[in-house]
Amino acid sequence: MKIKGIVASAAHLPLAPASVDARDVQPDDVRIDILYCGVCHSDLHLARNEWGVSQYPMLPGHEIVGRVRETGHQVSRFKAGDLVGVGVMVDSCGHCAACAGAEEQYCEAGFTPTYNGKDRYTGGTTWGGYAEGIVVDSKFVVSVPENLELSGVAPLLCAGVTVWSPLRHWNVKAGDKVGVVGLGGLGHMAVKLASALGAEVTLFTTSPQKGADAIRLGAKSVVVSTDAKQMADAANTLDLILDCVAAPHDLDAYLSTLKTNGHLVLVGIPDSRHPAPDVTPMVFRRLSISGTSIGSIRETQEVLDFCGQHNITADIELIKGNQIEDAFARMLKGDVKYRFVIDINNTDF
Amino acid sequence: MKIKGIVASAAHLPLAPASVDARDVQPDDVRIDILYCGVCHSDLHLARNEWGVSQYPMLPGHEIVGRVRETGHQVSRFKAGDLVGVGVMVDSCGHCAACAGAEEQYCEAGFTPTYNGKDRYTGGTTWGGYAEGIVVDSKFVVSVPENLELSGVAPLLCAGVTVWSPLRHWNVKAGDKVGVVGLGGLGHMAVKLASALGAEVTLFTTSPQKGADAIRLGAKSVVVSTDAKQMADAANTLDLILDCVAAPHDLDAYLSTLKTNGHLVLVGIPDSRHPAPDVTPMVFRRLSISGTSIGSIRETQEVLDFCGQHNITADIELIKGNQIEDAFARMLKGDVKYRFVIDINNTDF
Ligand SMILES: [Zn+2]
Ligand SMILES: [Zn+2]
Ligand SMILES: [Zn+2]
Ligand SMILES: [Zn+2]
Repeated sequence: MKIKGIVASAAHLPLAPASVDARDVQPDDVRIDILYCGVCHSDLHLARNEWGVSQYPMLPGHEIVGRVRETGHQVSRFKAGDLVGVGVMVDSCGHCAACAGAEEQYCEAGFTPTYNGKDRYTGGTTWGGYAEGIVVDSKFVVSVPENLELSGVAPLLCAGVTVWSPLRHWNVKAGDKVGVVGLGGLGHMAVKLASALGAEVTLFTTSPQKGADAIRLGAKSVVVSTDAKQMADAANTLDLILDCVAAPHDLDAYLSTLKTNGHLVLVGIPDSRHPAPDVTPMVFRRLSISGTSIGSIRETQEVLDFCGQHNITADIELIKGNQIEDAFARMLKGDVKYRFVIDINNTDF
Repeated sequence: MKIKGIVASAAHLPLAPASVDARDVQPDDVRIDILYCGVCHSDLHLARNEWGVSQYPMLPGHEIVGRVRETGHQVSRFKAGDLVGVGVMVDSCGHCAACAGAEEQYCEAGFTPTYNGKDRYTGGTTWGGYAEGIVVDSKFVVSVPENLELSGVAPLLCAGVTVWSPLRHWNVKAGDKVGVVGLGGLGHMAVKLASALGAEVTLFTTSPQKGADAIRLGAKSVVVSTDAKQMADAANTLDLILDCVAAPHDLDAYLSTLKTNGHLVLVGIPDSRHPAPDVTPMVFRRLSISGTSIGSIRETQEVLDFCGQHNITADIELIKGNQIEDAFARMLKGDVKYRFVIDINNTDF
């Protein structure tokens, strides 16, 4: 079927309205009328082919909230009208160790990305959420609580679950001391979610002017990471750090703020390597440096339920799909608090 | 009291027999007649002041096995004649979070090293195990099973527990796939202990001629780490790697052999940093790089009990204390299988 969206037709061309050929609704599929779609940094990178893996035309968007329009005849979990979400994945191999363990984000065969991916069923292309609708296997569709402001729900599907997954994997609980590095799309969700879990959150930033916002979002304290005195005062205080800064940076400074058995968890991949960390404190305090990638479908449902219970959404700026190029330009300057979200019903296709 | 040992009187002088002033037996102390003492690489580094922290005279040795000669009047766990061991620590602050959690090796105030340390009780110096005897707080004394060849037990007190602790901390169990990098004093114990736990052990080495020995010690397979084909064949196979090589080396190659959720655990501290690791596989497979430092008293007792049950000791070369300089020279060349142990009763003091 034809679906109208805001489409990248080449790396150097602005996104513009166009139609794509979506797959017909299969027995296990859900067809969703999209209400909102968040604008993730990876959308920008992929639209511009900055990772060298882009296929055109491309219909970006993997922070999708909408209502079910139609279901395949084998779908029992959803019915027309249900409020649902779709995140970064729309399929996976289904039988590797990761899939068997409900960690599809680590599928050994590679999960199928929501857009710019190869559809495991049709062999065609997957199309994302800057669009009127999407057709997705119901196993990769999650329920969205009805009580939340829906525009702010969209970023939970990628930014939210990406920080939720490590908070859960490393078992953050009430009273834990959690550091968050960087107050962007990911970082602001990390502050909200970690503090809602009862953790005492320290926000590390190079921008002192972000401090007040961090406190408003739930942080207990703010450390300006370029201030040696403030960093020294934070030494040996934290159980876990979610490092949401992708640019190459000194990891030793953050290791110094971890207590024995602490974890420095890297959410982003830098274009070039971080400077080599010093192993000495890692050995003497049994510290770890880890990576983490998005989250599972189970965790995506979990973070949505948690946000429903705690009335948490992302802080967003609502745009029309036709403003996407301006949004990309502002994202490049870090000028967004804290996520752009496309209002699909207010977009001219 | 005076105790005779093999003493370093300066960084540039050979070790030689001399007496030191040990503390008198305190109410909680045990005085031990030493039978065997292993020769750890740190003995060499400290005797030569290579870490810049050495105090002279110094009496090295922290892989100590002996029999209780005398106990303070508050000691009930030990009596004269008991077979006991002393490892790397002889005291700690006793009240920090690490000590409260029975992980004295991570004492926030710093544990008291068995030698070249400041005695928390007397304010004097601590004296190690290249000696006729030692006086130690009974809390830092462990029981040694009577069924083991005692000369091979000595290295369990440092090399053994240093690899045992991470095997237990990361919960290695039967069927797990464990890599060990380097077949030296630590690595040969890691192969023995991990395989005795039921893990399937892969030994990584740059020396193909070590392969047969690795298999004899319990390894299931051997990978020559300089062979790109062998490394590629090992990709994505391991749950945990104990990296026992202290010299700076490429960590990416070992990360590539880890499965999703795998851990690369560094046992040594390089003189200069390892090359910066690539974060990409760490994010996409949720890998971690961690350090680990020796083990707790509880874990030291545990590894001795485990070795008693499984009849495991270190492979050693027995020397007289008076041969220590020759032993150091051979250790510098990596020419030891796999630990020198001093036969105290066959040493001229
Ligand atoms: Zn995203
Ligand atoms: Zn899979
Ligand atoms: Zn040692
Ligand atoms: Zn302590």
